[in-house]
Amino acid sequence: MIKTDILIIGAGPTGLFTVFEAGLLKLRCHLIDALPIPGGQCAEIYPKKPIYDIPGFPEVLAGKLTENLLEQGKQFEPGFTLGERAETIDKQEDGSFIVTTNKGTKHHAPVVAIAGGLGSFEPRKPLIENIAFYEGKGVEYFIKDPEVYRGKKVVISGGGDSALDWAIFLADVASEVTLVHRRNEFRGALDSVDRVQELKVLGKINLITPAEVTKLHGEDKIKAVSVTKEGSEQIIETDHFIPLFGLSPKLGPIANWGLEIEKNAIKVDTFDYQTNIPGVYAIGDVNTYPGKLKLILCGFHEATLMCQSAYKIINPGKKYVMKYTTVSGINGFDGSRKEAPKAVVKAIV
Amino acid sequence: MIKTDILIIGAGPTGLFTVFEAGLLKLRCHLIDALPIPGGQCAEIYPKKPIYDIPGFPEVLAGKLTENLLEQGKQFEPGFTLGERAETIDKQEDGSFIVTTNKGTKHHAPVVAIAGGLGSFEPRKPLIENIAFYEGKGVEYFIKDPEVYRGKKVVISGGGDSALDWAIFLADVASEVTLVHRRNEFRGALDSVDRVQELKVLGKINLITPAEVTKLHGEDKIKAVSVTKEGSEQIIETDHFIPLFGLSPKLGPIANWGLEIEKNAIKVDTFDYQTNIPGVYAIGDVNTYPGKLKLILCGFHEATLMCQSAYKIINPGKKYVMKYTTVSGINGFDGSRKEAPKAVVKAIV
Ligand SMILES: Cc1cc2nc3c(=O)[nH]c(=O)nc-3n(C[C@H](O)[C@H](O)[C@H](O)COP(=O)(O)OP(=O)(O)OC[C@H]3O[C@@H](n4cnc5c(N)ncnc54)[C@H](O)[C@@H]3O)c2cc1C
Ligand SMILES: Cc1cc2nc3c(=O)[nH]c(=O)nc-3n(C[C@H](O)[C@H](O)[C@H](O)COP(=O)(O)OP(=O)(O)OC[C@H]3O[C@@H](n4cnc5c(N)ncnc54)[C@H](O)[C@@H]3O)c2cc1C
Repeated sequence: MIKTDILIIGAGPTGLFTVFEAGLLKLRCHLIDALPIPGGQCAEIYPKKPIYDIPGFPEVLAGKLTENLLEQGKQFEPGFTLGERAETIDKQEDGSFIVTTNKGTKHHAPVVAIAGGLGSFEPRKPLIENIAFYEGKGVEYFIKDPEVYRGKKVVISGGGDSALDWAIFLADVASEVTLVHRRNEFRGALDSVDRVQELKVLGKINLITPAEVTKLHGEDKIKAVSVTKEGSEQIIETDHFIPLFGLSPKLGPIANWGLEIEKNAIKVDTFDYQTNIPGVYAIGDVNTYPGKLKLILCGFHEATLMCQSAYKIINPGKKYVMKYTTVSGINGFDGSRKEAPKAVVKAIV
Repeated sequence: MIKTDILIIGAGPTGLFTVFEAGLLKLRCHLIDALPIPGGQCAEIYPKKPIYDIPGFPEVLAGKLTENLLEQGKQFEPGFTLGERAETIDKQEDGSFIVTTNKGTKHHAPVVAIAGGLGSFEPRKPLIENIAFYEGKGVEYFIKDPEVYRGKKVVISGGGDSALDWAIFLADVASEVTLVHRRNEFRGALDSVDRVQELKVLGKINLITPAEVTKLHGEDKIKAVSVTKEGSEQIIETDHFIPLFGLSPKLGPIANWGLEIEKNAIKVDTFDYQTNIPGVYAIGDVNTYPGKLKLILCGFHEATLMCQSAYKIINPGKKYVMKYTTVSGINGFDGSRKEAPKAVVKAIV
């Protein structure tokens, strides 16, 4: 059982900034995310694109914003359960909650902050018979650790940035990379399209277009796939099949947690962004209230106000006086200390 | 008469970010501030100190944050009325407002956003007979343009960072700098105290402590000051007397504008941060609502929601669909365009 003060569901920008604000109040956080990496939409959908409306950044890449938020919170030592979806929530007699993931990992906390964005990112799966059987047996929808593919044969399918970028990356790692796409045209950054073109010419990527993977073969794990191009089928031996058709967010199990839902989002009070279940908050894209905007900067504000309210649940009766970071500095849970240089009082003689 | 879409009172971080958010909605802004420079508390009180809780910045100097916010908004060409205090507001028949400053500058806009922080920064003035007479005649409480002092004789009084920093700066500009402080001890950054010590030894700053400026002399403008040290008075010829005893914020005239005030702040609705006067909004430190925190990041959120509401007043009946900056890019009023590199659709052959 993982124990923490604030259990955050969703490691997008809102969840990540919550770690920092909670840390200022000496509260510890643990985050669950269905994605294998933190960053939410910024990491999954547009890591290499610039955002122009983060206050104080005339321009920042979404991936860089994620890095900065991780850096800003790191002294508060957040825990992570990645690649797992929060599935159920159970209220305990003492008012605390146990949240269990699809892989059975249990988390216990007095406060739950749902920062689930548009929902848990779930892969779009190709319609191939038996694909479910091969999941975890050579079929993967995310690449968690590229080292897994070293010296192995890999078939990737898809025609967007993920398919292009991973084909390029694995061309240097795997023993053989086949890229299958149902059109001749790819859609992605110009650089990536051009690089795949080069690697194809160099014989480092085996490109098959317009084509589709139509069958999977193997006993207890995948051994080969059938690729159908213009009506004719060829069999390609492989250790892995990685369909990269994008991820789509699904509110999913959270929709059944007894929360008031409106327009696919969780209703909250703007006083503290608490839901209709006391002790359960909803912040960032996942919530709704009059005037709501689904913007990153709004999630930051919501997270901050929420932490003040969570503090009162976790420390009943204790009074908290807000201090400016500039004036009081920051004490990390890792023993680190950040503070502004102090003014001196010194005679000039 | 200065005309604009949103007239912003206060050029602190909240007012500055409003320029950007309004610009995204194609609304123009003009800012009024009692200070001679933009940045509010960040510029006046702690420009060289780090802030740790601006989301995405593990650390940023308050002065640098101000610069970044100016840079982020600059393509929306904000106007500024600096060094003047907004004094009166008059509602026009068509629902628009005319705001007049203490210097008589008039501003006309359909929407007024009060981003006045803790209030208009007003200098703490020393209790010297006749000082009011010499204001603008050699007595200045702010330094707007250091070039004014080139080749002139200057007396500065005060014992904090402003007095130290300006004494250092003017030592290279003025023909003679005298620094008067009622104690021997100064309070400020170690660097600054040490530098003044050096300049004193080099004879570039004439230091008189523990002492006070007690009288001002001159016909139509200042010519000399009396400095009293341990009971004995000396007369020092000077062209300027600059008392730097800090600025203190005063809600001031805004308190009489018919706005609902609670705990020295303006009550607003969190739907759009509008006050009890339709068309007048209050954002940032100056407002209050249940759960309010006087933090910079909260002002950013409030400014953003406010602009959506202001848009409807300024463009009645027109529908606005929010777009992500990453997806739509930014069109500056100066003709500039910022946008993410586009994906290509390209065959690989
Ligand atoms: C193309 C694009 C461009 C954008 N441009 C901008 C812009 O310029 N400015 C701006 O402010 N915003 C922009 N946005 C929106 C911005 O990305 C979102 O507002 C922001 O990501 C919301 O952050 P969040 O942390 O609330 O949620 P998300 O980033 O959506 O993160 C939520 C996370 O929660 C996880 N999750 C949800 N449910 C579960 C569960 N049950 N179990 C485990 N994990 C779960 C998800 O997997 C996800 O990783 C853009 C969005 C897109 C798609
Ligand atoms: C020492 C110190 C440390 C701080 N540390 C932090 C921190 O770590 N994190 C954080 O989030 N916040 C911090 N703050 C608070 C932060 O500075 C404020 O929240 C922020 O400045 C508020 O911004 P604002 O734009 O709303 O108002 P302000 O910055 O107060 O700006 C308001 C401006 O309006 C002007 N004004 C008001 N009335 C009038 C008028 N009638 N006419 C003309 N001009 C007018 C004023 O002159 C002023 O320049 C700190 C504050 C101080 C003093």
